Amino acid sequence: MTTGVRRRMGVDERRQQLIRVALELFSRRSPDDVSIDEIAAAAGISRPLVYHYFPGKLSLYEAALKRASEDLAGRFAEPHEGPLGARLLRVMRRYFDFVDEHGPGFSALMRGGPAVGSSTTNALIDSVRQAAYEHILAHLRVTDPPARLELVIRSWISLAESTALIWLDGRRIARAELEIQLVHDFAALTAVSAAFDDEMRAVLRPILQDEPADGPFSDLAARLIALAS
Amino acid sequence: MTTGVRRRMGVDERRQQLIRVALELFSRRSPDDVSIDEIAAAAGISRPLVYHYFPGKLSLYEAALKRASEDLAGRFAEPHEGPLGARLLRVMRRYFDFVDEHGPGFSALMRGGPAVGSSTTNALIDSVRQAAYEHILAHLRVTDPPARLELVIRSWISLAESTALIWLDGRRIARAELEIQLVHDFAALTAVSAAFDDEMRAVLRPILQDEPADGPFSDLAARLIALAS
Repeated sequence: MTTGVRRRMGVDERRQQLIRVALELFSRRSPDDVSIDEIAAAAGISRPLVYHYFPGKLSLYEAALKRASEDLAGRFAEPHEGPLGARLLRVMRRYFDFVDEHGPGFSALMRGGPAVGSSTTNALIDSVRQAAYEHILAHLRVTDPPARLELVIRSWISLAESTALIWLDGRRIARAELEIQLVHDFAALTAVSAAFDDEMRAVLRPILQDEPADGPFSDLAARLIALAS
Repeated sequence: MTTGVRRRMGVDERRQQLIRVALELFSRRSPDDVSIDEIAAAAGISRPLVYHYFPGKLSLYEAALKRASEDLAGRFAEPHEGPLGARLLRVMRRYFDFVDEHGPGFSALMRGGPAVGSSTTNALIDSVRQAAYEHILAHLRVTDPPARLELVIRSWISLAESTALIWLDGRRIARAELEIQLVHDFAALTAVSAAFDDEMRAVLRPILQDEPADGPFSDLAARLIALAS
């Protein structure tokens, strides 16, 4: 029966199947704990045949990571319509969907998994961060970002990563709360930067003017003023 | 002459010298680009003798990283006196001193250097983060932190790491500005959390009451209110 399945699948189709199977296993246990034997069994083929399509676990891991990276980068795409806070909140929901779906694989990767330090892995992680950065810049309608804006956006992306990792470790806070918290964190970090720099203020003022009075940015401002008083 | 130096040094003394030499080289170029030959030459001993003290480059790298980790963790120690904002600013200055002194080594490590993914390296990085976390908790006089406070502190630590890495990549913003910005970011992230959660508000209120009107926290609040208006 295995042979029958094998005959019907082409090389690319079989590779795609192995990637799907690997990602499914990595979503439940860390890639470190998943063997090629298990992947072969889940795909219904022999261990040597897995090696025919992927020369080693690292190459299968990297192919799976490439698929997951493209998936994640795509979740930052969001129509350029409506208030910015609401757009970012929708992106954060999709981001946490991804983190939720890929839990142990995401943790292992970001905490230093089997392929961390490989140049392929690092390039894939960087490509996701770069896609997120470029999407945010485009939403802000900024083409030539000042150094402070680049810093705020890139450091906020790392804040989103660490928030997701801490959430995965025990899930002690509702993810919906963290999704909106990250939108507010973005507003707060840009506001800190704008509070000290005229160029940042000039970039942000037109954006904030478009925010509705009941949107997440205005809501945060009102709460912070209440907190300070 | 080399032999003379060798005879005078004990095993531990020689190991310490090699660690110093390695850290000095890693402060100017990425550990990936520093060979054992160079370390041997800089220490004035032969390549085989380096291997006598450290069985391979990874073990020397890990020993150097252990020394640097202890150094960095120590920089978070700060007397529990005076306003919190001013204490955190002094810690940030020492943190950027460290980042400045160890530039390429710090970047390589945090971006995925030669030993990233090794359990020793990951444990050392985690030990620094844990030391930073515990110091901050102690300054806040909190012994049993709610999940939201732990999240804010740990995610702010990762924000500090990414801010330092972005700074190292071109140094386009004055580090003194980033040191104070990170203090403000801490205030802003805790304020966001407190704006939505009663428990966080209860933890933070007594702390903020001790802040002077001309301290960084009060300064930020005034600037944010001016920005919002």
